[in-house]
Amino acid sequence: MILAKVVGHVVATQKYDELRGSNLLLIVKLDDDLQPMKDQTWVAVDSVGAGMRDIVLAEEYLALNKERYKAMSVVAIVENVFRDA
Amino acid sequence: MILAKVVGHVVATQKYDELRGSNLLLIVKLDDDLQPMKDQTWVAVDSVGAGMRDIVLAEEYLALNKERYKAMSVVAIVENVFRDA
Amino acid sequence: MILAKVVGHVVATQKYDELRGSNLLLIVKLDDDLQPMKDQTWVAVDSVGAGMRDIVLAEEYLALNKERYKAMSVVAIVENVFRDA
Amino acid sequence: MILAKVVGHVVATQKYDELRGSNLLLIVKLDDDLQPMKDQTWVAVDSVGAGMRDIVLAEEYLALNKERYKAMSVVAIVENVFRDA
Amino acid sequence: MILAKVVGHVVATQKYDELRGSNLLLIVKLDDDLQPMKDQTWVAVDSVGAGMRDIVLAEEYLALNKERYKAMSVVAIVENVFRDA
Repeated sequence: MILAKVVGHVVATQKYDELRGSNLLLIVKLDDDLQPMKDQTWVAVDSVGAGMRDIVLAEEYLALNKERYKAMSVVAIVENVFRDA
Repeated sequence: MILAKVVGHVVATQKYDELRGSNLLLIVKLDDDLQPMKDQTWVAVDSVGAGMRDIVLAEEYLALNKERYKAMSVVAIVENVFRDA
Repeated sequence: MILAKVVGHVVATQKYDELRGSNLLLIVKLDDDLQPMKDQTWVAVDSVGAGMRDIVLAEEYLALNKERYKAMSVVAIVENVFRDA
Repeated sequence: MILAKVVGHVVATQKYDELRGSNLLLIVKLDDDLQPMKDQTWVAVDSVGAGMRDIVLAEEYLALNKERYKAMSVVAIVENVFRDA
Repeated sequence: MILAKVVGHVVATQKYDELRGSNLLLIVKLDDDLQPMKDQTWVAVDSVGAGMRDIVLAEEYLALNKERYKAMSVVAIVENVFRDA
């Protein structure tokens, strides 16, 4: 998983059935100082109710069980990052 | 998923059975200003009827259920990108 | 999938059973001008009878159905690339 | 798998069910001299009881059997690295 | 698959059950002149009895059938690389 920040969203009417009803969040990967990185933006399906400017954990391949695969997803809202190194 | 732009297509007669009947679109990843990036081109199977110069969402691994895996695919046509950060 | 060019092959007698009987092609990723890129070389299993100097589509993860996974594979021989952007 | 160092952890209350009860470690990829690399940080689920400053093996996709997929995981604590080349 | 060279190994007592009994090889990706690349090192499970300084094929995701997934693996020992381009 990567640490990312929610910076926007995407509107797409014509889309794959799997994506219907999903919030499509624009997220940017964070660097070691938790600042957004240039040209490291993805669109992720929201699974946890994340909002603008939230720091989140995003996972590229979310396959919870053998029946179901999901596109890149926000899987957690981060409250604190402890780093010492 | 990544934000990409449709910039062309590829013709390939001799191909894997799985790809028969698929449109093979040439897509380029977009940077933070939604401009095409250099040497960030992929060939993607069209799943939503995307056309030239459309901005799209592309997903590298599309496995809707356990029976079926698809190569890199265009999964949505993007109408608007809202970004504030 | 990526656009690549076949530039050679690899001989490996001692190999995983899954790879027995497969042609192991050396392929190089192409840039936006369809020129080979430096240090962007992979070894791919040939699935379509590609030959030296062919431009091909290569797919990193080829899993046609749930029974079978294949290593990076050449999945199509490209005749024409149309690009306008 | 990559060689990485545990440099911290992440607190996230609101998260995907799959992640409940997991330790979310902050790990940094190591370079050829076993030094942490800049902006090569991931969040990984701990599977082996790793602690701060441990050198570990991390695996991006951990799918032990067909029933279960796990997010990026720490899969081993490294005691020694022997390198000669 | 990538061309890589075996440059060492890793000792890890505390590890995921799946990795027990496996040789953990340190492999480095090779450039177009078959020279080791800087900071392109992985740890791979040996599947073919590779030794120090062998040139090998490594595959990041080895899933031979639906029951079993393996971490990054050395899948072949390379005897010759023919390249002409």
